[in-house]
Amino acid sequence: MGFKLNVSSARRASRTMWLLSLVFLSVCICVCKATAEDSAMENIVTEKKAEESHRQDSADLLIFIMLLTLTILTIWLFKHRRFRFLHETGLAMIYGVLVGVVLRYGIHVPRDISNVTLSCHVNASPATLLINVSGKYYEYTLKGEINANKVDEVQDNEMLRKVTFDPEVFFNILLPPIIFHAGYSLKRRHFFRNMGSILAYAFLGTLISCFVIGLLMYGCVTLMKQVGQLDGDFFFTDCLFFGAIVSATDPVTVLAIFNELHVDVDLYALLFGESVLNDAVAVVLSSSIVAYQPQGDNSHTFEVTAVLKSFGVFLGVFSGSFALGVATGIVTALVTKFTKLRDFQLLETALFFLMSWSTFLLAEACGFTGVVAVLFCGITQAHYTFNNLSPESQDRTKQLFELLNFLAENFIFSYMGLALFTFQNHVFNPTFIVGAFLAVFLGRAANIYPLSFLLNLGRRNKIRSNFQHMMMFAGLRGAMTFALSIRDTATYARQMMFSTTLLVVFFTVWVCGGGTTQMLSCQRIRVGVDSDQDNSQMSLSEGSERRSTKHESAWLFRIWYNFDHNYLKPILTHSGPPLTTTLPACCGPLARCLTSPQAYENEGQLKDDDSDLILTDGDINLTYGDITVSTDGSGVHTSGGPAGMTAAMTSEELDRELTCGDHELVMRGTRLVLPMDDSEPPFTDPHRLHM
Amino acid sequence: MGFKLNVSSARRASRTMWLLSLVFLSVCICVCKATAEDSAMENIVTEKKAEESHRQDSADLLIFIMLLTLTILTIWLFKHRRFRFLHETGLAMIYGVLVGVVLRYGIHVPRDISNVTLSCHVNASPATLLINVSGKYYEYTLKGEINANKVDEVQDNEMLRKVTFDPEVFFNILLPPIIFHAGYSLKRRHFFRNMGSILAYAFLGTLISCFVIGLLMYGCVTLMKQVGQLDGDFFFTDCLFFGAIVSATDPVTVLAIFNELHVDVDLYALLFGESVLNDAVAVVLSSSIVAYQPQGDNSHTFEVTAVLKSFGVFLGVFSGSFALGVATGIVTALVTKFTKLRDFQLLETALFFLMSWSTFLLAEACGFTGVVAVLFCGITQAHYTFNNLSPESQDRTKQLFELLNFLAENFIFSYMGLALFTFQNHVFNPTFIVGAFLAVFLGRAANIYPLSFLLNLGRRNKIRSNFQHMMMFAGLRGAMTFALSIRDTATYARQMMFSTTLLVVFFTVWVCGGGTTQMLSCQRIRVGVDSDQDNSQMSLSEGSERRSTKHESAWLFRIWYNFDHNYLKPILTHSGPPLTTTLPACCGPLARCLTSPQAYENEGQLKDDDSDLILTDGDINLTYGDITVSTDGSGVHTSGGPAGMTAAMTSEELDRELTCGDHELVMRGTRLVLPMDDSEPPFTDPHRLHM
Repeated sequence: MGFKLNVSSARRASRTMWLLSLVFLSVCICVCKATAEDSAMENIVTEKKAEESHRQDSADLLIFIMLLTLTILTIWLFKHRRFRFLHETGLAMIYGVLVGVVLRYGIHVPRDISNVTLSCHVNASPATLLINVSGKYYEYTLKGEINANKVDEVQDNEMLRKVTFDPEVFFNILLPPIIFHAGYSLKRRHFFRNMGSILAYAFLGTLISCFVIGLLMYGCVTLMKQVGQLDGDFFFTDCLFFGAIVSATDPVTVLAIFNELHVDVDLYALLFGESVLNDAVAVVLSSSIVAYQPQGDNSHTFEVTAVLKSFGVFLGVFSGSFALGVATGIVTALVTKFTKLRDFQLLETALFFLMSWSTFLLAEACGFTGVVAVLFCGITQAHYTFNNLSPESQDRTKQLFELLNFLAENFIFSYMGLALFTFQNHVFNPTFIVGAFLAVFLGRAANIYPLSFLLNLGRRNKIRSNFQHMMMFAGLRGAMTFALSIRDTATYARQMMFSTTLLVVFFTVWVCGGGTTQMLSCQRIRVGVDSDQDNSQMSLSEGSERRSTKHESAWLFRIWYNFDHNYLKPILTHSGPPLTTTLPACCGPLARCLTSPQAYENEGQLKDDDSDLILTDGDINLTYGDITVSTDGSGVHTSGGPAGMTAAMTSEELDRELTCGDHELVMRGTRLVLPMDDSEPPFTDPHRLHM
Repeated sequence: MGFKLNVSSARRASRTMWLLSLVFLSVCICVCKATAEDSAMENIVTEKKAEESHRQDSADLLIFIMLLTLTILTIWLFKHRRFRFLHETGLAMIYGVLVGVVLRYGIHVPRDISNVTLSCHVNASPATLLINVSGKYYEYTLKGEINANKVDEVQDNEMLRKVTFDPEVFFNILLPPIIFHAGYSLKRRHFFRNMGSILAYAFLGTLISCFVIGLLMYGCVTLMKQVGQLDGDFFFTDCLFFGAIVSATDPVTVLAIFNELHVDVDLYALLFGESVLNDAVAVVLSSSIVAYQPQGDNSHTFEVTAVLKSFGVFLGVFSGSFALGVATGIVTALVTKFTKLRDFQLLETALFFLMSWSTFLLAEACGFTGVVAVLFCGITQAHYTFNNLSPESQDRTKQLFELLNFLAENFIFSYMGLALFTFQNHVFNPTFIVGAFLAVFLGRAANIYPLSFLLNLGRRNKIRSNFQHMMMFAGLRGAMTFALSIRDTATYARQMMFSTTLLVVFFTVWVCGGGTTQMLSCQRIRVGVDSDQDNSQMSLSEGSERRSTKHESAWLFRIWYNFDHNYLKPILTHSGPPLTTTLPACCGPLARCLTSPQAYENEGQLKDDDSDLILTDGDINLTYGDITVSTDGSGVHTSGGPAGMTAAMTSEELDRELTCGDHELVMRGTRLVLPMDDSEPPFTDPHRLHM
């Protein structure tokens, strides 16, 4: 009875929902159209024009809001029915494409007569222009350069141009919350445990990928030049720039599924950590490539000093942004530690939000990269400030940035869909596109496989080949790639890159994102792992063995951990040992001043959140290593029952099993590794229980 | 010991805090300066210019973020020490003024050579301009008209001009969350109880205030013309416009103190309800006055048809905005009722946020007033949608809008402080300013006293004279007045209005806001009332008497309540009686379809939130009426001990008592009315208990 009611109500709900959404969307497109038509007919009076422009802006924004609403409702339906092949971002793109088609072909706006082209003989294009129109002065601000042969088109389609946002919006408004959230929600325990590998993939890997793609594309472009398919300039720096922007991976779809299916935590940490950091690397790398300017007349020759200068820019910008991000994080930690702001949660949350935002602005104002600063600020806030916040503020800040991340991400993806049709300077070149797909694939391969091989030489817990294949497969491109490529679409080369990038994003999000569950089953990657259970069980059962493997954990990490635990944590938070015991005696007064009263209480013992954050020395690497072995052995063994046939099963079958039976699978997953049956099932779905 | 530790840590904290804040602020002003200087020296290349402009923008925004941070830290200190004479908004203004002085007089930016004045012979100033600079096309967008004799100044002080935001930002970005939050957090029980009076004050009162101020200002302006003090045009419509914008009250400071001291709930409801609604009335009123355009050559004559048309605009825009706001609220309620979105809190919160935002955009796109639509959307969401949300989303949405409201409000107030020095077209005219202060005072008086007299004729629970004085005193002007006055500062009259409005806001916020506690004690208004306790006690003790006064509650309200309870609530939420029992038999299938399964369960009984919202018929008016009598009687009586001497006490003394002894006062307040001592003290301050 309960189940029947649910099903019928869900069906009714979905019908109501679709109707409502469609009515809303059509209302909003109509409004859009009406305001556009009005604007052409009315008298050209400045105030009226400004008002019309404002109404038009509202209507345009409304389209996106409605797209997001529709996405939310559809994705709810998908989640409700446990369809996993399409993530909300992929769906947002589809809706974006649909509305883009409607806007492009469905609505004809009469030529706007109000655009006037002035010819003037100044030497430059100033940022601000004062125009004297019959005695009155009007102020104009520069929006950007327009391709000479597109001038007519620009005037032609005011509607499409209006729906096109200033590209800097993505970089300055939508990306920062996404990146901050990535840093703030980083599962630091697993991140720190795999830090070496993550850094290698993010720095070396992105560099390799960038240069491999750049070289391949240069070959492709040279070929196109000889065939005569190229209408404009395309230099080696452009190829490298393309390499840099498509090297930023964004496996948000994959990670969402990993999270839902409780896939192996180390694979998750590797993928997430890599994608977070390589965004930062790609941003700085692309700006360093743009900064490459050899002296002399020809600005596209190879010059050692210019290359070194670019490298210097890379190092300078990256470390500067890093330092700024960490600095603001530390300031916030100090402020929250030494004031009693936690008594007023609203003030606390507001302060946290403002300080985090100021990182971005400060970095941008100083000429560094705000996005990178925000990432490291997020990590610092999570590592230190978070411990000083009141429990309410901890929830509030997490939820706030989760919401902002969700909205910004879906907005970007729906805009991507829209841009496929509304962007007016697309250059789709089949050869270039095929070459780019090939290069992206090879670039990712040249990143993952050789580096994994090298890393495995030093790692105790090897990155197995199925993990490597999964990482290769999960090289999705997303928001960052898009934001970087839309930032500058002035030249022919950049326009071709932008169009190609869009296709790469679409393909990877839909195909790779949609095939994640199939790939997981195909690679026989264990799902249903409860990371905390793993560790608590391990630390109980292997408590004695842990001590003996102490030496095997990464020395770099241990040095950092000791420093962090003994000095940074006590200075910046209320946890950790009192500074009076860790600092040398000569610093006594300072230590007493900086140590919080709470620190004396938890002397000798780590606070919960602290120990959760970084494991005590011994179990680094060890926990994982032992589990892996047991899984490797019994994984094939036990899954001989249901999962051993997976290779023969069609992927649809497994997907169905994952969809309908993940409850059982989860149980099985945990049972495989740990001999305990009384564990609570991670999924408790009331509907399922009714069945 | 505990107390000592707290004090010393607080003192240390405040020192650290000031140091940090000052360092940060100076860093950020330096950055600002540096980027401004850089910009003048570098080559004028478009890309560089755009980058510089972006850096400058970041630095400017950083100033505001730092101002807000500083405000938060200071206000924490004030709250920590229980200083009540300065609210965070007042403080934000003070800091704004300080930074404004520094920017104005402390930083000299060399003349920016990059502004070019073009003379061209087009008939209009189009919204978009394409400029052909030696073969390349650049796109420019219109920013606004500039006074001809200010052109040099504009070019002169790029720095100050940069720090000045587009006035529409206030109206389109900062005000909507403030207004939505006001609607969403409205204490509906007390609002509905006093609905008649609130509507009277908001609609009639604002109209009266607007016309009284308009007439007085017209007299003042006529005088100034004869004396020759007026440099430009100032028509009667301008005076009325001024009347409309300064009629929007915003007693945020007063309400915060009321909330903290638990002042009488009905006074709170009257003040809050009036201020929320009169903002909406003032916005629509001002736009109707702008829309007044008589036919013929002289556009400033009196014409009946034009007046009627303006009145029609007022009605149309107000009712249109109202309908739109309510409609989106209802759509959201339906969606949340008929889907199981509550299983996914993130989706639910995001949907709620997007739908609420879309109200604003939809209203603006249709030519209505977004701010008004958002207000009624907020009330509808709180009344219906809120019941359908999961508890997590209820918290999340409340906290989200609380935060947005806090940030936006403080941003506006700090900007106000800044604008006093950085706005470049101030017109301070002493006669006009004195006239305006007088007019504002008389306008408020003409609103409150006559209306209260009329309302008291019909009300069972009279609005006593001390409440009237308090409402008179609490007529602060704030964010809405500022946003309306800065929206258009093109003409001489508008500039004079803007400057005067700023002074009115400053005076009312600092003087009236700061004197709230003194005024409360001076008017002997009861503090420490726990509204819920009141009612639960009353309903227990006076249960029998309640029935007899049923007829005396407002008939309009009862009709509305019955309709809402029997039809709207069951359709839009899960609460209320099932529709199958309330709708006529012919609508059977529809009723079954719309009734949620939960409704059958709570048949016959009201859900908690519902009964909390609107009282059952009897206790409307009654509860308050009886309390008033007993307070009036015993208030003077019992406070004969400590509070009877209040009149003789200096206000400082009472303030001190309020600050240090509000714990006792609260107890006393409740004890006065209700003979029960075992009530929990509303304030439980751990620090106090240490003393």
